[in-house]
Amino acid sequence: MEENNILRIAMSRRSTRRFSSEPIEVKDVLYAVQVALQAPSGANRQPWRFIIIFDPEIKRGVRHLCEEWERKFHESQSLPKWFKEWLEERNISWEKPFLEEAPALIIVLADKKAPYSRESTWLAIGYILLALEEKGLASLTYTPANPQVISRYLDVPLNYTLEAIIPVGRSGENKVKESRLGLEDTVCIDRWGNNLELSSFPLAGYTRV
Amino acid sequence: MEENNILRIAMSRRSTRRFSSEPIEVKDVLYAVQVALQAPSGANRQPWRFIIIFDPEIKRGVRHLCEEWERKFHESQSLPKWFKEWLEERNISWEKPFLEEAPALIIVLADKKAPYSRESTWLAIGYILLALEEKGLASLTYTPANPQVISRYLDVPLNYTLEAIIPVGRSGENKVKESRLGLEDTVCIDRWGNNLELSSFPLAGYTRV
Repeated sequence: MEENNILRIAMSRRSTRRFSSEPIEVKDVLYAVQVALQAPSGANRQPWRFIIIFDPEIKRGVRHLCEEWERKFHESQSLPKWFKEWLEERNISWEKPFLEEAPALIIVLADKKAPYSRESTWLAIGYILLALEEKGLASLTYTPANPQVISRYLDVPLNYTLEAIIPVGRSGENKVKESRLGLEDTVCIDRWGNNLELSSFPLAGYTRV
Repeated sequence: MEENNILRIAMSRRSTRRFSSEPIEVKDVLYAVQVALQAPSGANRQPWRFIIIFDPEIKRGVRHLCEEWERKFHESQSLPKWFKEWLEERNISWEKPFLEEAPALIIVLADKKAPYSRESTWLAIGYILLALEEKGLASLTYTPANPQVISRYLDVPLNYTLEAIIPVGRSGENKVKESRLGLEDTVCIDRWGNNLELSSFPLAGYTRV
């Protein structure tokens, strides 16, 4: 096995908002869901369900409904200033062409009644993203402004929440990955406040019970 | 690159509640966090923070606090019957020896104020689990019955929630993986109700925009 394979995949992945019209293999999309099905979940209830949309008409319907509510969201006065600026810097508007341009959309649903349903489902989404990247497929975790209207459009029963829409395809943009914090910015040892310092930490060591 | 590497890793991983006393390499634990830091997050806020506990005294303190609240939880009358039975079948009681037996505990924290903080953090936990498995390390996503008391014990500021404790080590049990649903049980095509049938689905095909 290649060393640090997952780190390499995680580092190469970046969220994609423009997809090329290149076709993708159906089996690669199903592969990613198959990986997600192996994730752990609260009491192993496997609360996730998936709708994979290939049909261009249905993708268009999803796009229109999402954009209708995104428009309201983007125009609302309650949006925090920092977030408005963040969106503007990235040219992210209420328009969501990726919902039509991506060859496939994975709609991720979660059973409302299962314990830790949302947590488990998002953990499984992490699995999906890495598996797609392994297959050379770009993706985005898009959370619609009004998930209920999309659920209704797709005939999803009321006991499921729509957690995310993951457009899947070949990247059509040449974006660099957004910067990430490092280990020293995010890790404490033994308790809060005791920040990790890699230069003095026994990285080569072993830890035992 | 080896084909279907991530599926192989996801399939081999199973939640572990007994750890051996075998030492583990410090750098392998940090490797998994490094992978998590590459995950996407709402507005790239990277809401996650980690405390890695190696100190046996602090692990013991965490265990005692967790068990105190687990006991109350397990004895409570409000526990659903199916869940009580599920726990009993697996010999899961209020006792959490893995919190002391695992050579390391990764405490996962999430910034309460970041958008989609919980979702992003659990997605990153998915990354962590796969990265640990890649390094041959067993893990569990344990959610304490009272996360606040553990936060307080570890001096975590109030603007973070404790989302999970991930004990990490070599497996000390010979459990089989819990069964998982298959693609046909969980996937619909284009809309709810249109269940995937692998025998008739054009798996070898391509999908285009």
